[in-house]
Amino acid sequence: MVVSANKRTEKDSAPGKDKDDRMYVIGVDFGTLSARALVVRVSDGAEMGTAVADYAHGVIDRTLPVSGTEPASASGHGTEPAPASGHGTEPASASGHGAELPPDWALQDPADYIGALATAVPAAIADAGIDAADVVGIATDFTASTCMPVTADGTPLCQLPGLNDRPHAYPKLWKHHAAQPHADRINNLAHERKEPWINRYGGKISSEWQFAKALQVLDEDPELYDKAARWIEAADWIVWQLCGKETRNACTAGYKGIYQDGHYPSEDFLAALDPRFATFAKDKLEHPVQALGDLAGHLTGETAERLGLPEGIAVAIGNVDAHVTVPAAGPISPGKMVAIMGTSTCHVMNGDELAEVPGMCGVVDGGIVAGLWGYEAGQSAVGDIFAWFIEKAVPASYTDEARQRNMSLYALLAEHAMRQPPGAHGLIALDWEGGNRSVLVDHGLSGLIIGMTLATTAPEIYRALVESTAFGTRKIIDTFGEAGCPVTELVAAGGLIKDGPVMQIYADVLRRPLSVISSDQAPALGSAIHAAVAAGAYPDVPSAAAAMGRCRVDAYRPDPARAAVYDELYAEYVRLHDYFGRGTNDVMHRLRAIRDKAFFERTDAGS
Amino acid sequence: MVVSANKRTEKDSAPGKDKDDRMYVIGVDFGTLSARALVVRVSDGAEMGTAVADYAHGVIDRTLPVSGTEPASASGHGTEPAPASGHGTEPASASGHGAELPPDWALQDPADYIGALATAVPAAIADAGIDAADVVGIATDFTASTCMPVTADGTPLCQLPGLNDRPHAYPKLWKHHAAQPHADRINNLAHERKEPWINRYGGKISSEWQFAKALQVLDEDPELYDKAARWIEAADWIVWQLCGKETRNACTAGYKGIYQDGHYPSEDFLAALDPRFATFAKDKLEHPVQALGDLAGHLTGETAERLGLPEGIAVAIGNVDAHVTVPAAGPISPGKMVAIMGTSTCHVMNGDELAEVPGMCGVVDGGIVAGLWGYEAGQSAVGDIFAWFIEKAVPASYTDEARQRNMSLYALLAEHAMRQPPGAHGLIALDWEGGNRSVLVDHGLSGLIIGMTLATTAPEIYRALVESTAFGTRKIIDTFGEAGCPVTELVAAGGLIKDGPVMQIYADVLRRPLSVISSDQAPALGSAIHAAVAAGAYPDVPSAAAAMGRCRVDAYRPDPARAAVYDELYAEYVRLHDYFGRGTNDVMHRLRAIRDKAFFERTDAGS
Repeated sequence: MVVSANKRTEKDSAPGKDKDDRMYVIGVDFGTLSARALVVRVSDGAEMGTAVADYAHGVIDRTLPVSGTEPASASGHGTEPAPASGHGTEPASASGHGAELPPDWALQDPADYIGALATAVPAAIADAGIDAADVVGIATDFTASTCMPVTADGTPLCQLPGLNDRPHAYPKLWKHHAAQPHADRINNLAHERKEPWINRYGGKISSEWQFAKALQVLDEDPELYDKAARWIEAADWIVWQLCGKETRNACTAGYKGIYQDGHYPSEDFLAALDPRFATFAKDKLEHPVQALGDLAGHLTGETAERLGLPEGIAVAIGNVDAHVTVPAAGPISPGKMVAIMGTSTCHVMNGDELAEVPGMCGVVDGGIVAGLWGYEAGQSAVGDIFAWFIEKAVPASYTDEARQRNMSLYALLAEHAMRQPPGAHGLIALDWEGGNRSVLVDHGLSGLIIGMTLATTAPEIYRALVESTAFGTRKIIDTFGEAGCPVTELVAAGGLIKDGPVMQIYADVLRRPLSVISSDQAPALGSAIHAAVAAGAYPDVPSAAAAMGRCRVDAYRPDPARAAVYDELYAEYVRLHDYFGRGTNDVMHRLRAIRDKAFFERTDAGS
Repeated sequence: MVVSANKRTEKDSAPGKDKDDRMYVIGVDFGTLSARALVVRVSDGAEMGTAVADYAHGVIDRTLPVSGTEPASASGHGTEPAPASGHGTEPASASGHGAELPPDWALQDPADYIGALATAVPAAIADAGIDAADVVGIATDFTASTCMPVTADGTPLCQLPGLNDRPHAYPKLWKHHAAQPHADRINNLAHERKEPWINRYGGKISSEWQFAKALQVLDEDPELYDKAARWIEAADWIVWQLCGKETRNACTAGYKGIYQDGHYPSEDFLAALDPRFATFAKDKLEHPVQALGDLAGHLTGETAERLGLPEGIAVAIGNVDAHVTVPAAGPISPGKMVAIMGTSTCHVMNGDELAEVPGMCGVVDGGIVAGLWGYEAGQSAVGDIFAWFIEKAVPASYTDEARQRNMSLYALLAEHAMRQPPGAHGLIALDWEGGNRSVLVDHGLSGLIIGMTLATTAPEIYRALVESTAFGTRKIIDTFGEAGCPVTELVAAGGLIKDGPVMQIYADVLRRPLSVISSDQAPALGSAIHAAVAAGAYPDVPSAAAAMGRCRVDAYRPDPARAAVYDELYAEYVRLHDYFGRGTNDVMHRLRAIRDKAFFERTDAGS
């Protein structure tokens, strides 16, 4: 089993020095394809050992599995098929022999979560070489909104006899996008009725969230909807499995469950959507919402045995992979933004007060840390744009050179592109190939590149695309500032932090130093920090974060000369952003309508 | 020797049927790298045989040749290294051992023209299998403005003892671009003084033209400038070599020599440029300007012997490769536009009257056919844009597939792209990667693509680029119409006519049938038509064109359903064209300025 590169890293001086050095916690990060367990020392956050276990069925997006669950496979740290330099790879998808699924569906098998947990935790403890008796707590984070129908005792409906062939009985993974019509209905009605909560979500709730997905079940399989005593996030369901009781966490309740100011959307509103939906929140969601880092309960004997952990240790309230990352970056303070940069970018930040920042994914009281307002913004596609370009637009000459020099195509393009000073490519791009989440909240927008000449090369366009995503981040940061929530510090996390040229471009474009999170498994470390708090080792998440989290402060610093050129280019970006994004020239939406009509009518194209 | 595919093609009924079927003319098309001779039957324009001969020194753009002229090589029709499917290939360049040339220079050796002529003409006659005694006339067309300093008897200065190491003694090829500062001076002064002729050239004369190039000689080698008794187009110089006397043709005088309303720019204007330049036109250009198709003189005995032709046959006035193509398309009428589509596109059309059509390259009385106003417009880059995309932006998967299926990458991309109905790619582009010649006359503009998503493919972008050039042509045609010169008929010529998908897109976008010129060597056929007129076989060029020229009428017809979608896309093109091209958002010029500054300052870009 490969040992984590940064395990047992000692810190020169740490606020947690008074803790027993042999006290450990476990953080488990449930991703899209696998779960990672991380053993962390409570005193200083040192990462002792880790292991990853794949879900037996991965993403279920073609056919339902019909056979029972196969055992999960485990792999030590380093053998995980992590995308090179942090750029996304296509997730595996499972195909069983059950019912075929329509397009845009994405399900999972909850047995896989348990299987991966039971494999990864003992493997991580073995990797750490610690005595499991020294583990004092466990916490988990999950993709979200990944939600499912369960019985009153928490049994997933798909595990009930006779229901495993009913697609709606399974957990709907975050990227299940088949509930878009239901999200549209919710949004339209919310605006019609001027529901106060809609503006806390940038004016639009997502098809990925709890209400849209549940409404789809009601519409398409009402009998199954009726069988669901509870509708629950996987983030909360996994905690239920650990400690034997139902809980609800503030993060998913707020960001994915439209829980604002102490209540869900009104019965009146829900009844207007569908009379049968009137008591959805009351019947299937309602439950005390607990703060992140709270004690959910204690590890049950049965689960303890299965995981090889002491019975009765603290289990923390559930959390979400992006938000849980914030304490992993060290001391928590309002205005410190953590950007989780991967295929897309998620920006999370705490604020002292509730402000209306345009284009938020959500603002939630205690959504990141209890006592502060948690803001979330996002860029729909970042690493995905780079991957698209790499796959669709780079000629063989570069592919061949990268192969010969045994380097990634990303690194090769960056090497070529970074030989030039900024602006030398003469290009500017809008980063909307995946639409625009923040600050325009418009997925009907699309990409734009300007400035090509007959001499323009692939590395130059690649650099312009990287820069466009940095401009997009700057626009988000500027918007926070203009709304009275200044970003005072910026920490990068996620797969892209391994890409030095990308990071340097961000520092130059943003005109601010960029800190980089130190851990390679920041979400699991963030969960471990919450476990330490739940176990009582620290009084609260901020003090635990200060002791256990860390980042390379100001790892990338802006160069004033380059930043000056980027200021000029950013001014162009903003002008184009507003012209194409705020309706002056709505060409992108019209092109999309023409495209959709063309596909629909199937006009023949031959000559 | 390979025989032309369409030689001896009989026409069912032709207006030239009363001509002696054994009467022939020769057209010689002098291109950038070679000269092509074509033997044509006077009665019906049937192409009897052809041959191509390369210039020994090709394009001289690195160092001057110092050795004597080597003999030209000849090749029969079909062995010419013609670009596959009509897209441009990089021309060969010569490197001798003489003086090194600065950037942007492009010279030629006039001995190469004679060498190629002496090789190609006998080879074409042999290919045709005719009796040379039946040849009644010869005519030539040339690249332009390719111009040179000569003595009073027509000897190129570079052939004088002691001058072959002086770069300015050589002919400056059309694509010699080192006279841009001189063109700028001419343009600025012309606007300052409100010279009436400047607006006949879209407000800008080109650095490629006679005055800019001569002014460069005066500036940089005044001694050599003084030695030049005459400054002459290669188009006229070659005629001088054939018939032994100097002539000037209406086409180059008008389009390249600023000859308007019977006179060149005034002495006053030229003196204001440089006092030494005051009598440039009077001393070095002035000569009666003759109509196209006029008899220039008779083939001298010496040259006749060298070419294997009868002494004393008719030699026609010189012409330019693009303009000479018009009669090759058959009957001449005002409003019939011929688009010569290759790396760039040149649009030539006759009009009854002088109109101010915005963005013309030039409008010249008798510039195409005597008695009509000749209009010329252009798109700076067309095939060049496709070639740029093919080289710089197509991933290996397509390159490999094209190789495996033994087809061109152009054809493969088109095959993929044309499976979709128009508009299905959701894209729109501006065709300005090489700047915009007509109608904006702005080479500081650059390319733009809008509408990319993470699903956009290389064939889709390729198609959008092809469409963008068709939109550019539509904009030019619309502009002619709005100025009172409606385009009533459109004929395509040039290398791109072999690309069926491109032609069909043009027909659909333009919403009009597209005729395609029948000859594979349309300029040489056009020259032969002028030779027949000079020989007295026809009273004028229109009657000769009607008998000898031809095209596949309405070879491509628009599909109403596709045209309807293109109407919508063209509306978007026009909106973007005006927004970015007419100064509302001058981002393209600012990007260019930032780029130039970046190169100049060489700000370091490393991290």
